[in-house]
Amino acid sequence: MRNAAIAFDTMTASAIALATDAGLTGFAFDSIGRYGKGALLRERFFPRLLGAPSDALLDDEGFIDPPALARVAMTNEKSGGHGERSGAIGLIEAAAWDLRAKQQQLPLWASLADYYRTVGAGASISVYASCGHFRTDDVLTDEVRRAIGAGYRCVKIKAAGDMTSDAKRLERAAAALDPQAQWAVDLNGALARERAAQWFDAVAPFKLAWIEEPAPPLDFELLELYAEMAPVPLATGENLFSYDDARNLLRYGDLHRDRDFLQFDPLLSYGVAEYVRILELYADWPRRQFMPHAGHLFAAHCVAGLNLGMAEAAPDATLPYGGYWDGVHIDAGRLKIPEVPGVGFEAKANLFAVLENT
Amino acid sequence: MRNAAIAFDTMTASAIALATDAGLTGFAFDSIGRYGKGALLRERFFPRLLGAPSDALLDDEGFIDPPALARVAMTNEKSGGHGERSGAIGLIEAAAWDLRAKQQQLPLWASLADYYRTVGAGASISVYASCGHFRTDDVLTDEVRRAIGAGYRCVKIKAAGDMTSDAKRLERAAAALDPQAQWAVDLNGALARERAAQWFDAVAPFKLAWIEEPAPPLDFELLELYAEMAPVPLATGENLFSYDDARNLLRYGDLHRDRDFLQFDPLLSYGVAEYVRILELYADWPRRQFMPHAGHLFAAHCVAGLNLGMAEAAPDATLPYGGYWDGVHIDAGRLKIPEVPGVGFEAKANLFAVLENT
Repeated sequence: MRNAAIAFDTMTASAIALATDAGLTGFAFDSIGRYGKGALLRERFFPRLLGAPSDALLDDEGFIDPPALARVAMTNEKSGGHGERSGAIGLIEAAAWDLRAKQQQLPLWASLADYYRTVGAGASISVYASCGHFRTDDVLTDEVRRAIGAGYRCVKIKAAGDMTSDAKRLERAAAALDPQAQWAVDLNGALARERAAQWFDAVAPFKLAWIEEPAPPLDFELLELYAEMAPVPLATGENLFSYDDARNLLRYGDLHRDRDFLQFDPLLSYGVAEYVRILELYADWPRRQFMPHAGHLFAAHCVAGLNLGMAEAAPDATLPYGGYWDGVHIDAGRLKIPEVPGVGFEAKANLFAVLENT
Repeated sequence: MRNAAIAFDTMTASAIALATDAGLTGFAFDSIGRYGKGALLRERFFPRLLGAPSDALLDDEGFIDPPALARVAMTNEKSGGHGERSGAIGLIEAAAWDLRAKQQQLPLWASLADYYRTVGAGASISVYASCGHFRTDDVLTDEVRRAIGAGYRCVKIKAAGDMTSDAKRLERAAAALDPQAQWAVDLNGALARERAAQWFDAVAPFKLAWIEEPAPPLDFELLELYAEMAPVPLATGENLFSYDDARNLLRYGDLHRDRDFLQFDPLLSYGVAEYVRILELYADWPRRQFMPHAGHLFAAHCVAGLNLGMAEAAPDATLPYGGYWDGVHIDAGRLKIPEVPGVGFEAKANLFAVLENT
């Protein structure tokens, strides 16, 4: 399985279990993109947590305080350079959020909404299906049809930034879509400057809901140009892993606040506390413009608990990292998060089997 | 031991040994700042190297080709987010450089000069001493005197960005310095905007050679302001770990090409090939403005082989990561790299003992 830039077949994942003496366990499972965090966690971050006095990690009510864990884990870290470290910290904070919500006997989204006093939080969220990766055997049409059949109303497919090869994929996807469905295209940074004008013209008739990551993630100058040229909304940010980088996107990317979408991924970016700092930085952007990258069950709770626009789903529920909680159905592009404490890993059997066995 | 932002006492380091069937071994030893790269190396990067056909890693003459190793190790990596990954790749490339130079029976600097056809490369380089970290017992005066006594003519001390506490340190260092010596101050990103005007005024009489990292590494807007305000050269870049970030510094930091210094660290930033791409990006900056951060013996070879301005030294040669090769003396701020193949880890006994035993 590939996108325009990379293949995924040798990726691993990190998971964390954070157990209390009282018998509760908070879990976290990696988002997608950066992996191999084991030594970072064991050599840099866990020792700081284990060395901290417990009251430094708890709030006034005695619940675990996830942002405090992220802060303690970051003690003595040099600033700048946000890559793998941001994902290791995000994972620690996420396990603490699962644990905190379980201590409070709340679904995570309600715990988040309480912590951050979110206006408009609720269990029902919009989701979209991420399909159409490049495979040896192109199963695009079938994949898109199955996503629509499963209840999704917004589908994203991968493109390569080359009209000759993209045209077929776009037409095939368009033919497989319900006329009411929305769809988007993900370039994974692969649109070359010299082809951009022609490419934007060629995709204009498809009325895409958004064009994702047309420029490499840190090339804000090229993004600024594309934001000017694009006939439809742009989306970007899944490879910006910090407040610092999100601020540079805001300063230099020249995105449009009522049109474009932001896809920072809390799990890969130091966690929810950093994500909320980013939301505050973008205070004059509507919350609906935020659509966290990947992140799976955890990201769905962030969308619900922080009142964001939409969550991204890998639609194949037979995979541990695909679909949602067992028995939860997508209805007209929306789902309702079930009433289970925490993230609810326990309520998705194939994923929980992975967590239990590690 | 501390700087303005962090303590160093729990840092670990990664080292790599790359052995050929012919009995040669290339070594690399971490630069300072980011650590715990073990899982990244073992899970992501080594398998790609071990899976590559050997001719993909060799040049036409059959020598190992270090930039090819970096490229192969980066296969299927997502773009953006340059933190720990950049250091793991830098370490792999550095071990390959040590091996290549040994295959060629050249000191590394000569191998680099040959590979990149450097004009003005040579074994003799300028070095400066990095002193005056914050310690429980402030040994600043003694440290500076010992560095001057050891032959250094340029000394850098740490400052905190607060004039009340910095004033004493600056006066103490000034008193310990030879009147002919140059010195600089490192803020490690700790100068707050509201104190900056007063701080710059207060240090102006000291005629510093440079003021290092006044702003956090990715806050180019604040750096731009400081570059305007500063009475003497600025230096920055040790926490920008990629071409992408170096380009954003160039685009947005507004540094002065004939005044300010750039401290990108090849070992933390994907290696020499990426560093040379950065040099090409800054083609209209004189090479003397480049002073790589830390990096120790490896960085000294980069300074010699790429004709850069100055190398940074931790002056205490009794430490594995301090001083230079055994028997090499600093004379009026310069040293001559000895005629040993490769980096010459074997010619610094206390460091080589660490490498041999790991």
